[in-house]
Amino acid sequence: MDHVSEIITANRSRFLAELEEFLCFPSVAGNPLGLGQAAGWVANRLTALGGRVRVLPTGTPATGGAMGGLVEQPSVVFAETGQGPLSLLSYTHYDVQPPDPLELWDTPPFEPSQRDGKLYARGATDDKGDTLARIQAVEVYKQAYGELPFRLKFFVEGEEEVGSPHLVPLAEQYADLLRSDGVIWEGGSFDEAERYTVYCGVKGICFVELRVRGGAHDLHSAYASIVPSPAWRLVQALSTFKDTHDNITIDGFMDLVRPSTPAELDYMRRIPFPGAQMKANWGIPAFIEDADDRTAAIRFISQPTCNICGLVSGFSDEGAKTVLPSTASVKMDFRLVPDLTPEAVIGLLRRHLDRRGFRDVEIVSWDGMVAARSDVTAPVVQAVIAAAQRVYGQEPVVYPSHGGSGPMHALVQGLGMDGIMVGVGYSGEHMHAPNENIRLDDYFRHIEFLVEFLRRFPSTARASTDAAAAA
Amino acid sequence: MDHVSEIITANRSRFLAELEEFLCFPSVAGNPLGLGQAAGWVANRLTALGGRVRVLPTGTPATGGAMGGLVEQPSVVFAETGQGPLSLLSYTHYDVQPPDPLELWDTPPFEPSQRDGKLYARGATDDKGDTLARIQAVEVYKQAYGELPFRLKFFVEGEEEVGSPHLVPLAEQYADLLRSDGVIWEGGSFDEAERYTVYCGVKGICFVELRVRGGAHDLHSAYASIVPSPAWRLVQALSTFKDTHDNITIDGFMDLVRPSTPAELDYMRRIPFPGAQMKANWGIPAFIEDADDRTAAIRFISQPTCNICGLVSGFSDEGAKTVLPSTASVKMDFRLVPDLTPEAVIGLLRRHLDRRGFRDVEIVSWDGMVAARSDVTAPVVQAVIAAAQRVYGQEPVVYPSHGGSGPMHALVQGLGMDGIMVGVGYSGEHMHAPNENIRLDDYFRHIEFLVEFLRRFPSTARASTDAAAAA
Repeated sequence: MDHVSEIITANRSRFLAELEEFLCFPSVAGNPLGLGQAAGWVANRLTALGGRVRVLPTGTPATGGAMGGLVEQPSVVFAETGQGPLSLLSYTHYDVQPPDPLELWDTPPFEPSQRDGKLYARGATDDKGDTLARIQAVEVYKQAYGELPFRLKFFVEGEEEVGSPHLVPLAEQYADLLRSDGVIWEGGSFDEAERYTVYCGVKGICFVELRVRGGAHDLHSAYASIVPSPAWRLVQALSTFKDTHDNITIDGFMDLVRPSTPAELDYMRRIPFPGAQMKANWGIPAFIEDADDRTAAIRFISQPTCNICGLVSGFSDEGAKTVLPSTASVKMDFRLVPDLTPEAVIGLLRRHLDRRGFRDVEIVSWDGMVAARSDVTAPVVQAVIAAAQRVYGQEPVVYPSHGGSGPMHALVQGLGMDGIMVGVGYSGEHMHAPNENIRLDDYFRHIEFLVEFLRRFPSTARASTDAAAAA
Repeated sequence: MDHVSEIITANRSRFLAELEEFLCFPSVAGNPLGLGQAAGWVANRLTALGGRVRVLPTGTPATGGAMGGLVEQPSVVFAETGQGPLSLLSYTHYDVQPPDPLELWDTPPFEPSQRDGKLYARGATDDKGDTLARIQAVEVYKQAYGELPFRLKFFVEGEEEVGSPHLVPLAEQYADLLRSDGVIWEGGSFDEAERYTVYCGVKGICFVELRVRGGAHDLHSAYASIVPSPAWRLVQALSTFKDTHDNITIDGFMDLVRPSTPAELDYMRRIPFPGAQMKANWGIPAFIEDADDRTAAIRFISQPTCNICGLVSGFSDEGAKTVLPSTASVKMDFRLVPDLTPEAVIGLLRRHLDRRGFRDVEIVSWDGMVAARSDVTAPVVQAVIAAAQRVYGQEPVVYPSHGGSGPMHALVQGLGMDGIMVGVGYSGEHMHAPNENIRLDDYFRHIEFLVEFLRRFPSTARASTDAAAAA
């Protein structure tokens, strides 16, 4: 280990110069030049590592339209390095969030700047830092231990910040190429109390709009005694989705929620959940049903949601206007857990409404993503935990799932794999905001952590295979 | 009768010139000169009639504010004419709706113009036509039959188009002066099928806003599993106000709805209700609960409403935004029937919500007005019906109540009286719209009808008193 750390120190200034170079490219959606430069730079860097690089084209525009043409479709840079029967897939991305509002940056977003031991630039943490740290970690590994005894597959995409529209078809098209014995995803960071935190999944999402239409136009409200009201229909329909204790009562919905495993429960119970701080920040007196911190943490991580994002009907200004609105709609998002797919939710909603006579309530699907949830006992997860404990000197905080949603499923459970989110960030990283930054010490320790993980992964995976074979 | 009709014909051109003169004054809210001119003209015309005129000041501004000062408060012109133990109150107003949009008028709104037997001007029907027709009717009556054998009290206000903010305090202050044996209100007109239509009441109104507040700001919707949602609270609270058959289920609400009397039901059943036409105009396949025309008519006239005017919470634009809104509100109007006062409704709402644990739902009262409903067998109503039948040659259509709301209660039931809406309008009058007009023949026949009513009123009232004494 000391050896590894010495190699990193010896390469520190070159590694940092490479990172700054990578961060200069404005690889923002809609900027084909910046995206192309970043993709080319990654391909080149992977070749220099000794990787077998290929470009996976994302094909014709998924949604058609004016942007069209292959040239504007950011391709996936794929590379494989190492040899052996085992393999590991690494997912990161080279595109970054738009830097607006520019005036809030202390230094320009695409001119990396070091201050107080931090490196400021758009993409420093999300996700160029993660991407390059993994490449450099392999270089350090090779210098320390020789060739990787398994195949590490880099999958570096350029559309993450616009919702990864090609991830599902790419996963299907290149299933054999991508399928491995585990996945390391982007993300993971130090929390406010400097505890290293990793995530074994993300929630899915189903964003829908429910619409009810009445007459041809709004009417004088004097007619409310005889003219059916879309707003009342919507309220009546919605009210059947939840009880007054905030339990979701859509027929069959909760039946699709897998109970947490004993191992998941064990990890969730150890998650520090600063309930008092969250409630103070948000200005709420209590969590739903006055849940204590542990219960709230478990709900947040493991339970689906049925949320109203927006209600719209009729008059919305100050004062009084006596109108019977001709339309009413609600925008809703459901945060999904495994098995509860967007398709399942829409089917359940339709049947639930129809059974209650609400055939007039139209369901419009806006967005959908399947949840990802890995087995917390999987080798890739356990190797990460062991490596983090070794390098960071503390047990990492393990979330069986992130509370938010992401496109992890397509490349992980979608291909029958387990995966875990690890990354270079910290609580002050300003992700998606002005002055995005990483702490330089975090960056180099993350490389050290990754080397340790690469060292442990094959034996952990083999032990797991042997145990399975023996059982 | 022939004699009356001859007198009207003899005075036709002068009566018309007077009406045109009256219609020239731009007596619109916010125009003190125009309002003052109209008030002065009415006072003068009533003096010329032999009336004992007095001005009832509306006092200091009811709502305070920048408009302040007595000079800007349109006073009520009050006058009494005739002698006798019986009395009758006439309510009309000299203020008019703003004429905007001006460009849609074929001739200027305050330059009366005759075309095709119609007189076009703002206020022609609402309500200078009604006001002057009543003054001229008394003049004709006097010429035909001599002094009025009862006291007719003219109450001509100047704030009707801004919601009659001083009517309730004025009614209290001048109760003894105003209390009479019946009231004739403004309104009433020929319908599309040229049936003369009168109304024995109007609905009240209670306009409220219900608000639920959550945290200090909107949150990322990932937290929906642990953070209480104001939008869901509002939906759950609202859903208890109505069942899925559109019955109002607010505790105690329907208990305050008086059953219709046999006489009211009799009139309501004779009301022509063009249901098919209404449904086609509005683009709806059916009335609530597929009511037939007769049922719909009775509901529209006699039942209160609980209507959603507007729903507001969170995200209202195109597309998807995953947010947990921190506030939710609904604007509602209740159309009220007698006994179901705005105060009663707000009290019932509060208790209904509290009983179900919705103490967090705030009720903001925006507007309130008590319903008016007169006894359809009252002398003033029966005298109107008999006079209409005589002059118009047909049974009038009698609505026990208008479906809309108005400030009738203060001067009618509020002072223990019965009243009825009669007026000079017709279905093409364009009330509150550009090109407001009356048909000139309607105007002079309306004077004839009013004379006949004035002739019948004392005997009808005396017969009723005698019957009551005998019983």
